[in-house]
Amino acid sequence: MRRLESISLKEVSVDDGFFNRYTSLVADVMIPEQWSHLEDCITNFKIAAGQKEGEYRGVVFQDTDLAKWLEAVAYSLANKKDEMLEQRADEMIELIAAAQQPDGYINTYFTIVNPKGRFTNLREGHELYTAGHLMEAAVAYYSVTGKKRFVEIVSGFADLICEVFMEEERKDGVPGHQEIEIGLYRLYRVTGRETYLNMAREFLERRGRTPNYFLQEEKRESFQRIFPEFDHYDIMYAQSHLPVREQTTAEGHAVRATYMYCAMADIASEYQDEELLSTCEEIWKNMVTRRIYLTGGIGSSGILERFTCDYDLPNHSNYSESCATIGLALFGRRMAQITRDASYMDVVELALYNTLLSGVGIDGKSFFYVNPLEVWPESCMERTSMEHVKPVRQKWFSVACCPPNIARTLASLGEYGFFKGEDSLWINLFIGGSIKTELAGEEFRIKITSNYPNDGRIEINVSPRQKKRAKIAIRIPGYVKKYKIYQDGKAMDKIETRKGYVMLDTEFDDTKICLDLEIKPRVMYANPLVRADIGKVALMRGPVCYCLEEIDNGRNLPAAYIDTASIREERIQDERLGEVIRLTATGEKVDWQTWNQDLLYGEEKAGMTAQEFTFVPYAYWGNRSPGEMMVWVRNKLVMR
Amino acid sequence: MRRLESISLKEVSVDDGFFNRYTSLVADVMIPEQWSHLEDCITNFKIAAGQKEGEYRGVVFQDTDLAKWLEAVAYSLANKKDEMLEQRADEMIELIAAAQQPDGYINTYFTIVNPKGRFTNLREGHELYTAGHLMEAAVAYYSVTGKKRFVEIVSGFADLICEVFMEEERKDGVPGHQEIEIGLYRLYRVTGRETYLNMAREFLERRGRTPNYFLQEEKRESFQRIFPEFDHYDIMYAQSHLPVREQTTAEGHAVRATYMYCAMADIASEYQDEELLSTCEEIWKNMVTRRIYLTGGIGSSGILERFTCDYDLPNHSNYSESCATIGLALFGRRMAQITRDASYMDVVELALYNTLLSGVGIDGKSFFYVNPLEVWPESCMERTSMEHVKPVRQKWFSVACCPPNIARTLASLGEYGFFKGEDSLWINLFIGGSIKTELAGEEFRIKITSNYPNDGRIEINVSPRQKKRAKIAIRIPGYVKKYKIYQDGKAMDKIETRKGYVMLDTEFDDTKICLDLEIKPRVMYANPLVRADIGKVALMRGPVCYCLEEIDNGRNLPAAYIDTASIREERIQDERLGEVIRLTATGEKVDWQTWNQDLLYGEEKAGMTAQEFTFVPYAYWGNRSPGEMMVWVRNKLVMR
Repeated sequence: MRRLESISLKEVSVDDGFFNRYTSLVADVMIPEQWSHLEDCITNFKIAAGQKEGEYRGVVFQDTDLAKWLEAVAYSLANKKDEMLEQRADEMIELIAAAQQPDGYINTYFTIVNPKGRFTNLREGHELYTAGHLMEAAVAYYSVTGKKRFVEIVSGFADLICEVFMEEERKDGVPGHQEIEIGLYRLYRVTGRETYLNMAREFLERRGRTPNYFLQEEKRESFQRIFPEFDHYDIMYAQSHLPVREQTTAEGHAVRATYMYCAMADIASEYQDEELLSTCEEIWKNMVTRRIYLTGGIGSSGILERFTCDYDLPNHSNYSESCATIGLALFGRRMAQITRDASYMDVVELALYNTLLSGVGIDGKSFFYVNPLEVWPESCMERTSMEHVKPVRQKWFSVACCPPNIARTLASLGEYGFFKGEDSLWINLFIGGSIKTELAGEEFRIKITSNYPNDGRIEINVSPRQKKRAKIAIRIPGYVKKYKIYQDGKAMDKIETRKGYVMLDTEFDDTKICLDLEIKPRVMYANPLVRADIGKVALMRGPVCYCLEEIDNGRNLPAAYIDTASIREERIQDERLGEVIRLTATGEKVDWQTWNQDLLYGEEKAGMTAQEFTFVPYAYWGNRSPGEMMVWVRNKLVMR
Repeated sequence: MRRLESISLKEVSVDDGFFNRYTSLVADVMIPEQWSHLEDCITNFKIAAGQKEGEYRGVVFQDTDLAKWLEAVAYSLANKKDEMLEQRADEMIELIAAAQQPDGYINTYFTIVNPKGRFTNLREGHELYTAGHLMEAAVAYYSVTGKKRFVEIVSGFADLICEVFMEEERKDGVPGHQEIEIGLYRLYRVTGRETYLNMAREFLERRGRTPNYFLQEEKRESFQRIFPEFDHYDIMYAQSHLPVREQTTAEGHAVRATYMYCAMADIASEYQDEELLSTCEEIWKNMVTRRIYLTGGIGSSGILERFTCDYDLPNHSNYSESCATIGLALFGRRMAQITRDASYMDVVELALYNTLLSGVGIDGKSFFYVNPLEVWPESCMERTSMEHVKPVRQKWFSVACCPPNIARTLASLGEYGFFKGEDSLWINLFIGGSIKTELAGEEFRIKITSNYPNDGRIEINVSPRQKKRAKIAIRIPGYVKKYKIYQDGKAMDKIETRKGYVMLDTEFDDTKICLDLEIKPRVMYANPLVRADIGKVALMRGPVCYCLEEIDNGRNLPAAYIDTASIREERIQDERLGEVIRLTATGEKVDWQTWNQDLLYGEEKAGMTAQEFTFVPYAYWGNRSPGEMMVWVRNKLVMR
């Protein structure tokens, strides 16, 4: 296995018809907005640095707010220089350095609240998770700015962690929330220090051994509960129920799970570990054939934000955390890099075009943590089973993992869009923009003009500094039934796909490639074992899932039955949403007004009323008016 | 308003074709079985009495296990003398007396664990709830045995409560879990002490005033949390969001709610308080037209076991606690007694024939706390949103309110079945048995022979000691479309119902009344605003709701579509269930075996396979084999 590399963000500039609306907000809205919420976090760092007096504020992993902000800043600086912003980031990095303890330790919660409690509650303390995010931020910042300072700071912490966790007392220790494995591996990649790589692998290999570390930990005298409400720890929650190599299904907390799978993929490719890679493939298969939503959401249970069992995919009460979808995309991207199989990118594309964007409002400053496929606002009551579902995007969260995670993902779309081999460029997603990179020893400029998926026509202009033979692989999405490729205006015949990629192996010289994908509305059915979707259909167009909203279709959406033979598409300019392709369908709605409202149950069936229904992209729901939303709609033709 | 009285259990002996299977288990299985689980509770009483050393065990309201057991024992003794059992009950009553503090206080938790904390945490401490159950048990025991000892003991506690809660410091205090209002009222009825009546009314009138007692209480220095996991107290939880007279909807924790409504009905009738009665009527209307399941279950949210909003009636994730259904039946019975309106008993009947019996296995020693209308065992995973739903009845619970509550209800069915006015007997439920009571100054013996609802023919033999004019009111269930009544073999014509009761006002002399109710399978629809039931039907026959079980119909029940025109009934003798009327319907099932299992979503619809479906009474589900269950089934004919 030779792993492809993501293209460096310094080499790509995104300018995309579909994503610009969001990516333009990262620098201008999200990063400043998120900065304004960092007060508690910065205060904690100042207290830990001895620059201020006071009490620790916020959740135990509050430090990650700053780490994720810095990571987003790094990617954003790659897209758009901003000296003021970079200066502010440098100041924050110095603040982190000031809060670092003499032995390298960085964590304001333990430093302020419980300095003797370091690494005594890995299950709940999130120290290694927080460390991992600092490492990721430092690597990103170095990669974009070339400044080594942040990497040096976190390396000090990484050294301490490696020392502590190779010692006798913590030699079984594993993180309660995976992330450090990714951080250490990325740090290894920029520093070359193998200790970090070994530690990352070690954290994976140790997990799930018997006796279970987390169950042993709570028996120690040093153990202090942080979340007293989480009684009866479930070892499946953080995927410690089995050694990772023996895991075959996606289990437990979905963010923890996907971050771990990312690290497994990293380690598998680094060590050419076929066994570990096939574990990744098996878990991936379980996830995408049994435990994922059409929208790329994962995590069916509102309680503990976790996977449940095969085919358990309720639409209204699920979690589908924005961060879990990001974890899925990170995992899928790695698998595509390793296997060169485009089917992974089909799923990544679903995640990015649907759940990721559902997670953020088109204002760039309101967010969903939870991304259900069906919402009835009235029922989303506090202190009930539906408490986790919010019918309106929120400005901020007490556990604010999603907003900065969405920001860093939008700022790094190029890493998902394009991979590089030695003499090859891989186009995974049809994201418009410019790439300047070296292929086969020659500098290439590639300009991609795209309004995908609204349009299926994508132009790729390839300009090497001088004429040069190289390879360009282009993903043909799994849903596409017809496509054409033109090279300098000439249709290319007999071009074959290999694992979903078309490979152009030719001499380039200001070559214009034109890809024409047929993108039409599709009627999707679920495996009948998904009981939530029986008798229902969902509409898609390209990678975009559609939904009904109350604003277009009136109340009580579950009463709608659509005629799947009647679907039409229509390109409109919406006042608020901009260019949108909406879908329409005729159908009927069970008419509650024909029912005697003094009865809850009766022997007379309610009447039906004909109606035309309008669908909009799921990603855009809740941007116009609060109200009901629904992806899976009853099929009028179920019996035919 | 002249309230009818429930018939005294000393005057009625149940012998019913339908209920015998369960009632026979009360004395022989449930009471001994529940006795075997009282160890912790009894130990607590012994420690509090100074008869034993040790630590308090169990939940904060563990005392109620003994109280409810004693209440069930009382009713059971009315049905069947048992000297050994009565002696054991007397011993337990003496143990309670021994644990009573010099000032009258009874509560082993506070006595052992936190003696200074009495009445400082009404929100979570359950002291007044526990007191109420002791009062109910004492009244029941006195009513059946004529022994005053237990009533005297709890009266001492009642006196203390009245004193404390009329004092300045606690003059705003209200119970965190309603129940004492019922207990005090019942105690007033047997002791005649008006202080108890006043206190009961006062507890109701105080509730929901501003400032909210519970929010004030937690600010006091004396307040100690008992359930740290319940943060952010919701004042709606225990119905303290509004003064009771201003409440119009059923809100919060369903057991707390219904127990409060019972007390409101009691106080309304006692004080001839039309305003309070119309509040009860309004809340009842909200509940039965917006917030109740077809099975008589209430409480839609798994979290906090509570009501949510109108029409929010999910079938698989609801709570529908057995105790809440009992609370509903107690409330409906009171409303029927006050208003003489049989429609209340229609709902009580649903609750008793469906959810109450679902709550207990036919072995009499396994119980459901939660009664969903759809169960998929695999998804009922611990530490997920579905954790509260158990696919198999449990032997016992750490919070063991339901088993003894079911036992006391089964042992007191006569109180639901029959009311008495001055010269009238009211037959509400067609429960077979014998009644010996005085009507219009004459002793009447009434023998009811019934296998209702399996059969619609009920015989009522009325034998006064000597010929006497009196009234017998017979409820005609709301679902009945045709019925006939015969007096001594002669069909009675032109007999009118008044609020659902037929009134026979005649001279009785060994008179034989025969009631012939038409009982046929009915196809039920839900108001289309109940989104969980759109496109679905449920089958009923008389008051009995039916369900599909996996054992009869294979897996993946939600894939079933039935033809509502094809329903047939069939009387069978089931090896395990005994005499059962089962229903059958033809239909089709979406066939998962026609689906490509490597795909979760696809563009090809799965095929359908014709199948005959078998329905059994909901009450009996889970008694043969663990597996899926479903009440609301897809209607094949939805578009016609």
